[in-house]
Amino acid sequence: MQQYFVNGEAGAYVTIEDKDTIKHMFNVMRLTEDDQVVLVFDDAIKRLAKVVDSSAHRFQILEELDNNVEMPVQVTIASGFPKGDKLDFVTQKATELGAAAIWGFPADWSVVKWDGKKLAKKEDKLAKIALGAAEQSKRNRLPQVRLFEKKADFQAELAGFDKIFIAYEESAKEGELSALAQNLQTVKAGDKLLFIFGPEGGISPKEIAAFEEVGAIKVGLGPRIMRTETAPLYALSVISYSAELL
Amino acid sequence: MQQYFVNGEAGAYVTIEDKDTIKHMFNVMRLTEDDQVVLVFDDAIKRLAKVVDSSAHRFQILEELDNNVEMPVQVTIASGFPKGDKLDFVTQKATELGAAAIWGFPADWSVVKWDGKKLAKKEDKLAKIALGAAEQSKRNRLPQVRLFEKKADFQAELAGFDKIFIAYEESAKEGELSALAQNLQTVKAGDKLLFIFGPEGGISPKEIAAFEEVGAIKVGLGPRIMRTETAPLYALSVISYSAELL
Repeated sequence: MQQYFVNGEAGAYVTIEDKDTIKHMFNVMRLTEDDQVVLVFDDAIKRLAKVVDSSAHRFQILEELDNNVEMPVQVTIASGFPKGDKLDFVTQKATELGAAAIWGFPADWSVVKWDGKKLAKKEDKLAKIALGAAEQSKRNRLPQVRLFEKKADFQAELAGFDKIFIAYEESAKEGELSALAQNLQTVKAGDKLLFIFGPEGGISPKEIAAFEEVGAIKVGLGPRIMRTETAPLYALSVISYSAELL
Repeated sequence: MQQYFVNGEAGAYVTIEDKDTIKHMFNVMRLTEDDQVVLVFDDAIKRLAKVVDSSAHRFQILEELDNNVEMPVQVTIASGFPKGDKLDFVTQKATELGAAAIWGFPADWSVVKWDGKKLAKKEDKLAKIALGAAEQSKRNRLPQVRLFEKKADFQAELAGFDKIFIAYEESAKEGELSALAQNLQTVKAGDKLLFIFGPEGGISPKEIAAFEEVGAIKVGLGPRIMRTETAPLYALSVISYSAELL
């Protein structure tokens, strides 16, 4: 069944205000009276709802659904700005794979230089991609999308995490393959994890030192070299496996 | 260092015959005398080589490199033909993530109908994508790409695998989250695993029954719904984690 995120709190009835949501509901899906959808409000509970007035975009809430697909841990993916539209790809796939937040920051070795105006536009586009992917993968929460203009602002957020991992290609070359597994085994439900990925050129030694100073751990993601946009998918998949399936 | 796959056996010297490889070496990378590259022959051993005659495309083999990044298990990804160019995406990412083979087959619920001519062309394109991705991710082996025109031919291959998994979305809804983890823990080095994925519409009950008859196991890939092209990446990532990092 089609799912939509709605801002605000759930009442007995709700009138949809968001233009894109209205368009998808009544133009694309052609919902009409008594048609049912799933609505997800800010409390992350899925609710069955039916159209009571299609011209007023008004729904009646029928019941709460006992369905929570969120990860037991909150994973934030932070990518050093990569080239082109790779962040679009990372945002879509990371949302499907359960990320709590998708962040981007200007890394020392980022080739692209995005100013505030460009970043605001890009953030808006990524938020739309996250919304579409979250609805399609039936998430209970919409991942946060945030692009930092200044690396210092990104670094100021690091203190808020329980564990910080740096995806580090050289770890594989150095024969270190178990740091990730060892650390994931100590993760507890509710923990906030941050996973930092470099841009195409990697993370600079200066950045690694700065991240390590606040407790970040370098981890390898297997022996093969992955593209910068593939590594976050590996990380999210194995965190899901470790926290949800094992 | 740039890596290339070369057909045949390694000798003391080698002359490159493949046109695309020659083009990349001498036009794109502009290799010249004494420049070094890594060459990988059919034996999957990486060898350092240097140009001895750039106009004759001739290299001298210098030494074997002790670097093997192949998974300890051989994983074949089989996707019911999905729409559009999703197989291109799956081929690139599955190669980065260590797949031994990427197969496609006409599933009951595949929307696209590809005839033999179209399949040959598509297979050729996918093989090129796999080659590029395998060189970039420094694989020791080039994954096999194979598109089956008849499902019966695909099914005839099933007997060759040690374990067959069916990615089954309903497993998640039924609360089954551990079958994959339980089964991966019994996998041994050298095992041949097949992971079957449906097209957008999923795998038909008739197909599931046929696969189960030869021992295939339905497994969930976490509680979230993934797109058909994302699920193989999840599977490969967790197999790598289980077999290489845990």
